[in-house]
Amino acid sequence: MSDKPDSTENQMWGGRFSQGPAAIMEAINSSIDIDKRLWREDITGSRAHATMLAEVSIISGEDRDAILSGLDQVAKELEGGTFKFSQALEDIHMNIEARLKEIVGEPAGRLHTARSRNDQVATDFRLWCRNACDEAAAGLKALMQALAERAEENAATVMPGFTHLQTAQPVTLGHHLLAYVEMFSRDAGRFIDARNRMNECPLGSAALAGTPFPIDRNSTANALGFDNPCANSLDGVSSRDFALELLSAAAIAATHLSRLAEELVLWTSPQFGFASLSDAFSTGSSIMPQKRNPDAAELVRAKTGRITGSLNLLLTVMKALPLAYAKDLQEDKAATFESVDALALAVAAMTGMIGDFTPHPENMKAAAARGFSTATDLADWLVRELGLPFRDAHHVTGRIVAAAEAKSVRLDELSLDEMQAVETRIHSGIFDVLSVDASVASRKAYGGTAPENVKTQAQRWISALKQEN
Amino acid sequence: MSDKPDSTENQMWGGRFSQGPAAIMEAINSSIDIDKRLWREDITGSRAHATMLAEVSIISGEDRDAILSGLDQVAKELEGGTFKFSQALEDIHMNIEARLKEIVGEPAGRLHTARSRNDQVATDFRLWCRNACDEAAAGLKALMQALAERAEENAATVMPGFTHLQTAQPVTLGHHLLAYVEMFSRDAGRFIDARNRMNECPLGSAALAGTPFPIDRNSTANALGFDNPCANSLDGVSSRDFALELLSAAAIAATHLSRLAEELVLWTSPQFGFASLSDAFSTGSSIMPQKRNPDAAELVRAKTGRITGSLNLLLTVMKALPLAYAKDLQEDKAATFESVDALALAVAAMTGMIGDFTPHPENMKAAAARGFSTATDLADWLVRELGLPFRDAHHVTGRIVAAAEAKSVRLDELSLDEMQAVETRIHSGIFDVLSVDASVASRKAYGGTAPENVKTQAQRWISALKQEN
Amino acid sequence: MSDKPDSTENQMWGGRFSQGPAAIMEAINSSIDIDKRLWREDITGSRAHATMLAEVSIISGEDRDAILSGLDQVAKELEGGTFKFSQALEDIHMNIEARLKEIVGEPAGRLHTARSRNDQVATDFRLWCRNACDEAAAGLKALMQALAERAEENAATVMPGFTHLQTAQPVTLGHHLLAYVEMFSRDAGRFIDARNRMNECPLGSAALAGTPFPIDRNSTANALGFDNPCANSLDGVSSRDFALELLSAAAIAATHLSRLAEELVLWTSPQFGFASLSDAFSTGSSIMPQKRNPDAAELVRAKTGRITGSLNLLLTVMKALPLAYAKDLQEDKAATFESVDALALAVAAMTGMIGDFTPHPENMKAAAARGFSTATDLADWLVRELGLPFRDAHHVTGRIVAAAEAKSVRLDELSLDEMQAVETRIHSGIFDVLSVDASVASRKAYGGTAPENVKTQAQRWISALKQEN
Amino acid sequence: MSDKPDSTENQMWGGRFSQGPAAIMEAINSSIDIDKRLWREDITGSRAHATMLAEVSIISGEDRDAILSGLDQVAKELEGGTFKFSQALEDIHMNIEARLKEIVGEPAGRLHTARSRNDQVATDFRLWCRNACDEAAAGLKALMQALAERAEENAATVMPGFTHLQTAQPVTLGHHLLAYVEMFSRDAGRFIDARNRMNECPLGSAALAGTPFPIDRNSTANALGFDNPCANSLDGVSSRDFALELLSAAAIAATHLSRLAEELVLWTSPQFGFASLSDAFSTGSSIMPQKRNPDAAELVRAKTGRITGSLNLLLTVMKALPLAYAKDLQEDKAATFESVDALALAVAAMTGMIGDFTPHPENMKAAAARGFSTATDLADWLVRELGLPFRDAHHVTGRIVAAAEAKSVRLDELSLDEMQAVETRIHSGIFDVLSVDASVASRKAYGGTAPENVKTQAQRWISALKQEN
Repeated sequence: MSDKPDSTENQMWGGRFSQGPAAIMEAINSSIDIDKRLWREDITGSRAHATMLAEVSIISGEDRDAILSGLDQVAKELEGGTFKFSQALEDIHMNIEARLKEIVGEPAGRLHTARSRNDQVATDFRLWCRNACDEAAAGLKALMQALAERAEENAATVMPGFTHLQTAQPVTLGHHLLAYVEMFSRDAGRFIDARNRMNECPLGSAALAGTPFPIDRNSTANALGFDNPCANSLDGVSSRDFALELLSAAAIAATHLSRLAEELVLWTSPQFGFASLSDAFSTGSSIMPQKRNPDAAELVRAKTGRITGSLNLLLTVMKALPLAYAKDLQEDKAATFESVDALALAVAAMTGMIGDFTPHPENMKAAAARGFSTATDLADWLVRELGLPFRDAHHVTGRIVAAAEAKSVRLDELSLDEMQAVETRIHSGIFDVLSVDASVASRKAYGGTAPENVKTQAQRWISALKQEN
Repeated sequence: MSDKPDSTENQMWGGRFSQGPAAIMEAINSSIDIDKRLWREDITGSRAHATMLAEVSIISGEDRDAILSGLDQVAKELEGGTFKFSQALEDIHMNIEARLKEIVGEPAGRLHTARSRNDQVATDFRLWCRNACDEAAAGLKALMQALAERAEENAATVMPGFTHLQTAQPVTLGHHLLAYVEMFSRDAGRFIDARNRMNECPLGSAALAGTPFPIDRNSTANALGFDNPCANSLDGVSSRDFALELLSAAAIAATHLSRLAEELVLWTSPQFGFASLSDAFSTGSSIMPQKRNPDAAELVRAKTGRITGSLNLLLTVMKALPLAYAKDLQEDKAATFESVDALALAVAAMTGMIGDFTPHPENMKAAAARGFSTATDLADWLVRELGLPFRDAHHVTGRIVAAAEAKSVRLDELSLDEMQAVETRIHSGIFDVLSVDASVASRKAYGGTAPENVKTQAQRWISALKQEN
Repeated sequence: MSDKPDSTENQMWGGRFSQGPAAIMEAINSSIDIDKRLWREDITGSRAHATMLAEVSIISGEDRDAILSGLDQVAKELEGGTFKFSQALEDIHMNIEARLKEIVGEPAGRLHTARSRNDQVATDFRLWCRNACDEAAAGLKALMQALAERAEENAATVMPGFTHLQTAQPVTLGHHLLAYVEMFSRDAGRFIDARNRMNECPLGSAALAGTPFPIDRNSTANALGFDNPCANSLDGVSSRDFALELLSAAAIAATHLSRLAEELVLWTSPQFGFASLSDAFSTGSSIMPQKRNPDAAELVRAKTGRITGSLNLLLTVMKALPLAYAKDLQEDKAATFESVDALALAVAAMTGMIGDFTPHPENMKAAAARGFSTATDLADWLVRELGLPFRDAHHVTGRIVAAAEAKSVRLDELSLDEMQAVETRIHSGIFDVLSVDASVASRKAYGGTAPENVKTQAQRWISALKQEN
Repeated sequence: MSDKPDSTENQMWGGRFSQGPAAIMEAINSSIDIDKRLWREDITGSRAHATMLAEVSIISGEDRDAILSGLDQVAKELEGGTFKFSQALEDIHMNIEARLKEIVGEPAGRLHTARSRNDQVATDFRLWCRNACDEAAAGLKALMQALAERAEENAATVMPGFTHLQTAQPVTLGHHLLAYVEMFSRDAGRFIDARNRMNECPLGSAALAGTPFPIDRNSTANALGFDNPCANSLDGVSSRDFALELLSAAAIAATHLSRLAEELVLWTSPQFGFASLSDAFSTGSSIMPQKRNPDAAELVRAKTGRITGSLNLLLTVMKALPLAYAKDLQEDKAATFESVDALALAVAAMTGMIGDFTPHPENMKAAAARGFSTATDLADWLVRELGLPFRDAHHVTGRIVAAAEAKSVRLDELSLDEMQAVETRIHSGIFDVLSVDASVASRKAYGGTAPENVKTQAQRWISALKQEN
């Protein structure tokens, strides 16, 4: 796009341009295949602008009415798929304006008074991004709800908690799923903050310097649901940090999705056997009927690449661009659409998989019990019950673990005698902490994995998410 | 770091490790050269933890006192530069704990009760990042103040407004500078939002599953200025989206800095001649005494690379990491420190340059008057005064511009006759809008470049920023 | 795609999959909208495979003939646009195979003997990337030719050489353009190296482990123009470094294009006035007929974002993927297609602009003469002619420049007396080096900007590029 | 750095700069803490330059001798750690030149004849990068050797081959390791290609335009081991694609390292149990003596972030920089050093781990036999032996697998009767292909996993790598 406020026929300088734009120029310059997605926002913005122009008597009421009813018809054509797009008209804004002129004639030419394609496109794109933030937050909340529900079901389902992918301590599956609820909750918060920050209206910034017409920018801002008009016209047409913030929020959310997707891939592998995905979210093999490939989880994981790449794309485009409008900004839309689409798909697929997957509690519990995963509980017991200093407790624990390892038994399979051989003061109370169930039950301090904590947290989330909807 | 809650001597498993860690392992594993920067946060966190442990009677008051006074001494040694760092102790947490043990003996061993290196490092790093957000916001506000002050001075200084780096319409330098105030204001907002979102305390998450000790997590959270404890221990130790959000905010701010830096490079080039930088922010040439290279502006522009690169670094690290703690997370700190340092330097340099640069209003104004930059004003006048439809107005304007171009004069140098030859209804009122001063003065709609608007906005910002400090 | 070697109906496991794939699964899983671009490569690969299978008697000559003639018909339908694509068949490979089955019946089922979708897609994609490398190199050579031709024309056209965008020393436009010929030449070299390295044939790797059928991999490799078959089947199906190398080469080339694009934006700005672009590569303004926006140059500059973003995308996808095939790899194609398309467009647009732009030698020369740009020549003369040590020469030069600055004259406008007042030994020979023409003419050492050097280099390139074509 | 060819005291313009550079300017401008690493290259370059200047009689033999012996002393001081670095002298080039002047006096001032800091730093940095390429290739070859040796040992060690992390077909560990040899071999090739492409000497490009001195650029190029001098002086000082190519090669290699590191993390997890790492490359837990965290593998995986981030950093810096030298280029060195260091460490750690890890063949084999991993072999047998069309063979196989699944037995545990119940023509020859050993042994086509293939390939690599050393 460029700073030609009025050219509904964007080939109108063609008269002067003797050679005509080369095919290559049309190919690089035209954005209609991408920005046609903005048609709703464009028409909404034009409605608000026309209404305001009439309010402050820049155009007549009749012109306004002609414009509004013409826009209705354009919208109908676009909705119905009968609108004829023209590459030569470059972008959605010119396509709509040209069609409006065909329908209503001269009043169409008055619609562009006191605005320019620069503030028009900035407004349309902000409206789109604002909506994308709302939808991303809503999508994440649906995912959180799915997670919280599975967490409540599995508040007491024991699984190994890993560090370094090595068994560290038992946790519950519910606790694990709620960790992601926390992450996605912050992700939703980032989209909401982005939405609030971008919610200022560029319309009326005109090409770059504002306008001498006595327009009422509060009127258009209100009509379009913005908190207020942008306070600086150069900023209004030149800035794209609102898109960058949206892309950043998407990139961070994508890393969380990729972590959970990775875990689904691991859990459904035969080596882990912690869970299965149904036919709806996996693909099979014609000759290995039992095999299910977690394609959806892998694709969610891969979408991180797309979403990170789009953020990089726009950061690179924006680097060192002088004010005000530059054609480089045209690249903002494809990057943003791609990222938002990929995120929406990934969130939907993840929500589906969370509702779908079947945990295998027996496998999880067996894995949780391997590797002396309650050794920390033993050490903590020595500190609490016998008053051993932390370090001494760890030393004693190490020796008991070594004894169990030598005998190839679990810690809770050692006899009291065998433990007393290492530390005489150990008494039978020790058996209260050595099982994985006891271990998770004991971690009741706020934020810990005790099933009662998990249940409380899951219910808190479920009810909070319901209230929001 | 790893999930060994107690090991002040992190080679203690060396007894079992017969071969000993290879030199390469020490090189890749040790982080002390990086994370020593966290020493203040580590000591602050340990103070809060020890105080709370005594409050809930997990340790005695005497142990607490010994620990606190020992930590005082460690802090003094670190502050004074007399602390001896050990590579073999891997990180700052182990270095401090080992030294504390030398100073106070056994009570040092009790400090690590009910915590682990995993929640300890997460807490320290959050404290650091929280402070970095505060400082980034403060730095940006100082830059905004410098910009607003120069904007007020230059509320009426006319310069060309560019689109596509071509002269489009006159604006004022003040208006241009205020566009950046808007951008940096949103940047500061992003740091503040990031700060608020990250302000939850991981301490007490322990290794990953929480703790069976009856700790009071609200006490430590309050003592450390957090809004509340993290609600999920796995999330507390595994998540780094707080750092990613900080890095994203930095990357977006860096693009704004790079745009302004690019403009300083352009403005101070001999071809533009819009401004000069003093000796303080440029370097000279020994044989071309009049030459001043805008090194600081170029370096600010280049820092975008560093800051974007750090965001990429951490996004890549976090991709597809299963919960909970993984050693990969160790890469978070270097990336964050580098980004924050680069941003701080870039903001400081930019603030200095904004205070320093001398505009050359005569050059700016001459440039603004070239290229028939008031053609839009002429067209708008035809719409407003003669009631021409927008499109017709543009057509008439095009012909008048062509006449001026043919005579090699500015629009305001054409005679009324010459204009009436194109459109007979034009009257002498037209001359009120053809000068660049008239053009900028007319753009009084909210957000426009009219000097009175610019003055109002500049003063609003100056006073708002003062109130915040 | 997945590891199902035979399933031409990829819903065939639907019998078992009671719920059927959800719409979301189809949306995330299907790649046909992207990978349909590989149809030519897919048919070529299948031809080679069928031919080889018959050669080694795995299938009969009749089956081969049926398959080959069936593939001919499929190709015709695809070429002619009558082929019916099915989303449910997921990808181009399944679409073609299903259609082949409709046409030729049972022999179609034998085509997939001893291969799998995994090696099939790896082969198709390599063929596509190999061709993309060839075309990128060819496109860059056409650009180099355009640059070399303009360089020869402008071998003696003086312009300012900048450092820090400040006038430093005079150079010639031809020399400047040839700098880009060097860059693009290395870029072309990178594509050629990438091509050569990727030129190994994965076909016959089967799903991942190779095949027990006695196939002749050299036969298919030869038929497809590969240097040899991949030596390891796991590598053959799992590696995408060939795409990453292509994307890296594109990203580096894009930075070069962005540098030249930036210069075109600067040169065509009114402040520089060094060049103009014709109507074919710029857009105008309906009311400012003299204004030309360098849209094509800006868009070339912006494509760097797209191309860098795609590289990031695939680097992120590939991070930490275990062998062998993972569904994540499906993201490789969109990323690569987007990057290659963007580069092709950017190179074509740049080639057009280089052929199109009109330099304004008088403006360039005037700019080159400003800023005492021959001060270095003066200093060098003092070293050469008077034997002054370098440092003393610079000191003397600084004082002479200061004298010229004080008088507001160029260096070659100072009198001999005025120069001798600084250094008595200066004689009239000095005037041989003070003009910008003399300056550029003197820089005859290899690689320097002397017009005779530039002419030689330009001709060398023109003739070398011709020979290659 | 800037275009001041002579200023050994880079504060010499301080006389003019009345205010003096602010602390912030020194902080942002000084690069000595980074570029001191180039000291060897700087001295080597100066030696070659001085020698050439004397050869062509620009300086005297005595001056040359003084310079060379002075440089010897400077080198000795730098080697010995006694050299005093000065921040005020900005960079390593100025630090060395200033020290040389202290040692040898006036001749030091002649060293800088016909060169500038711009070509000097470009030369130094290329020398460094060239060496980095050589070392990266050598490091990768050592890793390949380690892999090939382990591959030979494990040519017949059966493990599951995964697709989608699901068991697909049996392969051998040797085959799996050789897949990485192929990848790292291409990575080494990329470094070698980068090295060859960058091997042109910028020295003599001077500030940007070349030099009027009759220097012999072939002499310096030869002395420094370059293939030839750069053909264009602007390109010589402005281009950094040589660093970008190095960084790209590093990023691609890093993705390969991250894939193998991920596999080591998986294999050493208790769920897989395929391998263990010794104490040298893992860390333990003080209370869980059997636990070993694969820290080194995780850190190798994480280094991908650093290395990708550095590539992004420099791509961002280079975007849209006009020629010639700009201060932005100063960011090139930190990015490159960080990437090369991270890669070197990651390659060394991986080489160590490959030599170190103990495979657990029994676990691998048991896992390979699960999941009916030889179903494909059965289907292939039906095609080969009974002449069934591919699709029918898959149908039959699916039914046999279902029978085995129903009985909970492996395929080779079904009786002939049970198989004949599905397809009467099956005979006892079928048992030759149903075991995992038979499966891998059968895949003898070139590139397949048959142990004899693996042994041949491993030996080929071992001997090829030996010859190169």
